[in-house]
This record gives sequence, C-alpha cells and structure tokens, in this order.
Amino acid sequence: MTAPISTLDALDSEIVLKSVDDALADFLAVKNSATAQPHLPYLSGLVRDFLSGGKRIRPLLCATGWRAMGGGDDDEPMIQIAACLEMFHAFALIHDDVMDNSDTRRGRSTIHRTMAAHRATSRGAEEADWFGVSAAVLLGDLTLTWSDELLHQAGLTPGQLAAVLPLLAEMRTELMLGQYLDLHATGELTADVDATLNVYRYKTAKYTIERPLHIGAAMAGAGPEAMAAFTAYALPLGEAFQLRDDLLGVYGDPLITGKSRMDDLRAGKNTALTALALSAADGEQTARLRRLLGDPLLDEEGAETVRGIFEATRARDGVERMIDDRRREALRALDRAPFTADTVNTLEQITRMAIVRDS
Amino acid sequence: MTAPISTLDALDSEIVLKSVDDALADFLAVKNSATAQPHLPYLSGLVRDFLSGGKRIRPLLCATGWRAMGGGDDDEPMIQIAACLEMFHAFALIHDDVMDNSDTRRGRSTIHRTMAAHRATSRGAEEADWFGVSAAVLLGDLTLTWSDELLHQAGLTPGQLAAVLPLLAEMRTELMLGQYLDLHATGELTADVDATLNVYRYKTAKYTIERPLHIGAAMAGAGPEAMAAFTAYALPLGEAFQLRDDLLGVYGDPLITGKSRMDDLRAGKNTALTALALSAADGEQTARLRRLLGDPLLDEEGAETVRGIFEATRARDGVERMIDDRRREALRALDRAPFTADTVNTLEQITRMAIVRDS
Repeated sequence: MTAPISTLDALDSEIVLKSVDDALADFLAVKNSATAQPHLPYLSGLVRDFLSGGKRIRPLLCATGWRAMGGGDDDEPMIQIAACLEMFHAFALIHDDVMDNSDTRRGRSTIHRTMAAHRATSRGAEEADWFGVSAAVLLGDLTLTWSDELLHQAGLTPGQLAAVLPLLAEMRTELMLGQYLDLHATGELTADVDATLNVYRYKTAKYTIERPLHIGAAMAGAGPEAMAAFTAYALPLGEAFQLRDDLLGVYGDPLITGKSRMDDLRAGKNTALTALALSAADGEQTARLRRLLGDPLLDEEGAETVRGIFEATRARDGVERMIDDRRREALRALDRAPFTADTVNTLEQITRMAIVRDS
Repeated sequence: MTAPISTLDALDSEIVLKSVDDALADFLAVKNSATAQPHLPYLSGLVRDFLSGGKRIRPLLCATGWRAMGGGDDDEPMIQIAACLEMFHAFALIHDDVMDNSDTRRGRSTIHRTMAAHRATSRGAEEADWFGVSAAVLLGDLTLTWSDELLHQAGLTPGQLAAVLPLLAEMRTELMLGQYLDLHATGELTADVDATLNVYRYKTAKYTIERPLHIGAAMAGAGPEAMAAFTAYALPLGEAFQLRDDLLGVYGDPLITGKSRMDDLRAGKNTALTALALSAADGEQTARLRRLLGDPLLDEEGAETVRGIFEATRARDGVERMIDDRRREALRALDRAPFTADTVNTLEQITRMAIVRDS
C-alpha cells in the first residue's frame, strides 16, 4: 500500500504517516526505557514490532477528515489522535487474533503465538499456549490503555476534546458490538447476505472508515452536514473494504496479505462469500460447504473444494459485483458532498486503495 | 462487608456507596435501552449482574481521599469517578477469571462460564467453552471502554482532569504489569517471599488501595505531602489486604468468599503462603508441594495435604504475622499523617475492614 499512498499529494500523506510513526515510536520509547518496571521494555517492544506492519488506513482517514475541514495550523494534536487510533487498532487485532486462534498477522506470528514461544517452561506445550493466550489478552489491555494515554497527551483544546470523546466512545462500542455479532454468528452458517452486511457495518465500515474521518473532521470543527457527507461516503466504502478483505482471506497470497488464507474457512466465519454461495448452492454443494466450513482441521485440498464451490455458485463474482456497486455508491456520495476538489481527489484515491489491493 | 461499612459515619459511607451504585445503574440502563444495537441489552445486563456482588472498596477509598482533602461541595464528579474505578475493576476481574480459568466469582459463575452456558450451539462443549472465553474477553474490553465513558462523563473541571488522568494511567499500567508479573511467575514455584511481595505491590497495594485514595485526593487538590502520606499508609495495608486474600483463597469458605478455594492451588499461584512454606519445608514436604501445587486436577484430599503442610511449616502463622506487621505499619503511618481526626478514624476503620474479613 506504500506506493499509492505516496500519490496523495493533497494530503502530504507521507509526511502524515511518518509523523504518526514517530508519535508511536516516541510513546513506546518512553515505556521501553521504564526499566524500573519489570517486563515493560519487553512488552512495549512487542507492541512496537506489531505496529510496524500496519497499513495505517485509520490515521490516513483521520488526517483526511481534518484537512477536509480546513484543519492545518497545528497538525500535532491531530497526529497524536491518529496515533491513538492506530494504537487502538493494535489492541483490537491482538485480541481478535486470540479469539480467532490465528497463527499469523502482518507476515509474522500473532502475539499470543509469539508469547507462547517465548515462554520458558517445564510444564509443556499446553501450558505455554495458555500462557500465550493470557499474556496476549493482557498485552491487548495494556495497548488499549496506551491508546487512552495518547489521547490524553494529545494536547486537544477543551472544544476538540468535547467533540472527539463521544465519537471515540461510539467507535469503540461499535467495534466491540461488531466483533460480538461476528463471534456470535460464527459456527452457524447463514445464507442471509444482509445479516452479514449488518455485521460489516459495525465491525468495519463504521470502525475503519467512518469514525476515523469523523474524528479528524470533528477536531477541525466539522458541522452536521459535513459529518453526514462523510457517512454517506464511508459506509459503502467500508463495506467494500470488508468484502475485499473477505476475498483476500480466501484467495489472497499469504506472503502478501501477511495472514493465513485458511483461518476464515477453518473458523467457519460467515462472510458475504459464504452467504452468497449458500444461497445459490445445490443440495450437494450445500452439504459439502456445511461439512468443510468450520472444520478446524481443514486442509488445502478441502479449501480448494470450497473455493471451487465459491466459483461454481458465482459467489466470488457476486462479491466482486457488490464491491463495485459500493465503490460507485461511495463515489456518487462524493459528487453530492460539500468538499473541495482537493478533498474529493484524496477520497477518490483512498477509495481505490481500499478496494484495489492485494494486502 | 456491608455491616462494618455502615459504621464509617465520618464518610457517610452508605450514602456514598448508594450513589455509586446509582451511577453504575444509570449508566448501564442507557446501554440496556439501546435496542437499536443488537446484543447490547444482553451484554449490559451481564455487566450489571456482575457488578452487583462487589465489595466497592475502591469507590470507598476514592471517597475517603476526596473527603480527607476537604472535597465536599459537589460530590457528583467524585461519585462518577468512583463508579469509573468500580467499572474498571469489573473489567479487570472478567479478564482475570478468563486467565485463571476460574469457575466462580462473587458466588456465581464467572462471565466466561456464563456466556459459554448461554451459547446454543450444535458444535459441542469445546466450541461453547471457546466462545465463552472469546466473548468474555470482548465483554471485558467493552467494560474497560465503559469505565472510560464514565470518566469522560464525570464533569471534572480541567484542573481535576489534569490531576486525575496521569494517576488513572499509572493505575492501569501498574495493574496490568502486576497481572503480567503474576502470570509470568505462575507455574514456577518460588521460595522467595520478597519476589511475591513485589507482585503484590503492583497487583494489589497500588491498584486497590493507593491509587483510589490518590485519585479522590487529587480531585480535591491534594499536594505532594498528602499524597506521600496516603502512600505510606496504602502500601503496607494493600500488601496485608492481598495476604488476607491469599489465606481466604486457601482456607476461606467458598459460600462466603464467593470463589473456589481450589483455584489458586490448581493454578500453582505463587503466594506468600507457598513461598513461606517452601522456604521452611523439608525435602519430603517440598516434593509433595511441588507435585500438588499447579496440578489442574488437584482434589480435596490433595488440597488438604497442602493445607497440612502450610500449617506444619508454620507458613499460615507466618502470613498472619506478616498481615499484623503491615497493619501496624499502616496505622503508624496514620500517626505521622497530616490528616484530621475524622480522616484518621475512617482510615483506621478501613484498615480493619481490609484485614479482618471473611470474604
């Protein structure tokens, strides 16, 4: 994703992302040097490594919202808030990987696997695995706390704080409810595409796209009309982003996506892909999908069978069509939005980056 | 703990605790009525039930710190912060119970067990258990987020906010580091009592006693001398509180403590009790302790053997002596503290409540 971001001239996106990285590095360097607190350097080092592989889409959107509303005299508080969003996202992924029992993320071992591997113990692999899970839950908690510290150190004016806090609270609750909806639905496969899209709205569209734009815009004093325009753009784009993620989760190259393409299938995740396939499958295809999806021991041959059914039922094409519909809806929303040409240009480029990607 | 609290006349403790309960109930009622967000009423109901069994020691200490420094014109922001501390504690316990694999808390099923039991699934008990763990991690996350919302809705002045935020951040990091220290040490039994007490300092003394006093006091504008006096009182008392917890975890009546007295033994927790026993045990006792402690299938007979060794090595008596030493140290700190007679009286009563208790 590095190359397309550098084309976002209107946003000085390279400068923004470098500043966010510096803010995160500075924050963690203080934790890392806190040698009076045992284990803190180790734990902050894990978070630093974990953060290094992120796409930084939320910071970029936060900066876009800020710039779109004319923010710009002093970027520093916005950069701190963008860093706070990225730290929050690290928390969300650390816990998500525990819940999904994932082995890899961003091309490396997930945090619970890493911490299990670091565990020197005489009590065996099972104990080390549980240590990894427990320690990753704690490290996620610590990361969430640190995202709060970044917020409180950001130097927001009282007016900015009053505008940002309710949005941050909404964002957090929405993500967690989306995660819970997802968790709750996992294991009971559905052919109901709308139910799946409802989960995406919370888990991704609002969390990944709408709220970061809103938060940056709110810091620059955005009114309700602009907020509504961001929403009209963000929700279809966010659904498209998640739909692309679904395809990458099944068809992506693990060396490029940095994560396994077996996890979703083995977990029996409900995705638009599985819902479309089930709604179009014949009896035999349905039986095979229900047998294979959610099998924790699914092998590559079984996965190929599932992929074959996704193609035969035209579910894969259907998801591509859904992405394209939402892409056009997002761009139409920009036509109606009260934004400058520069802002529209930036958001159009973000639309491409979110949808045309291989990681 | 209800009866002794009612004797704290200087603090109007019943009024304080009723107000904190009301603040928590009001906050959750809003979440509970948010019917547009699926599952939110269910999740907030779980948190409400979980909160109902708490001892409220942190809110009480927060109010004590506030009153001691002359706070009192408008209690409402302090009550909200006290509620925020209690909500944070609910988060900490929900995740702690997951990590410790505990079945009961506050006389009821732990959250992960409850959510596993609520899981209607065709995929078997193992899937339901993992659902319970994942859902409890999420519910804990949500509860932590809600404790932030209580903070931000508390109506603190900018000066109060600036005083409280760093203390809250410290408190959170200290707890998580203490939990990590504890986790890290579990499974490798030690005879090093000082190492165990170091964990207690973070996990309990600072988190449970010192920081709640500091936070209440900071809201009322306490200076460094008063803060140091609270610390001198809080750290020995907090260690004593944890030492009492250790004894209750092994000798307490589960019907009164509300939690199993097998969990610590089965987990192989390092406590002052185990460290004292190991440092005094002969070869045969050491071998038996190392075989029994940390055995996840330990039965009541094995637990009785362990308890017998704790008594034979005088470890149980030793812990009682350590509690008494710390009780006297806390009270001596009060003699030197710049507090009014009312405050000293309240803190003396809190000392008794923290140490002489059966739950």
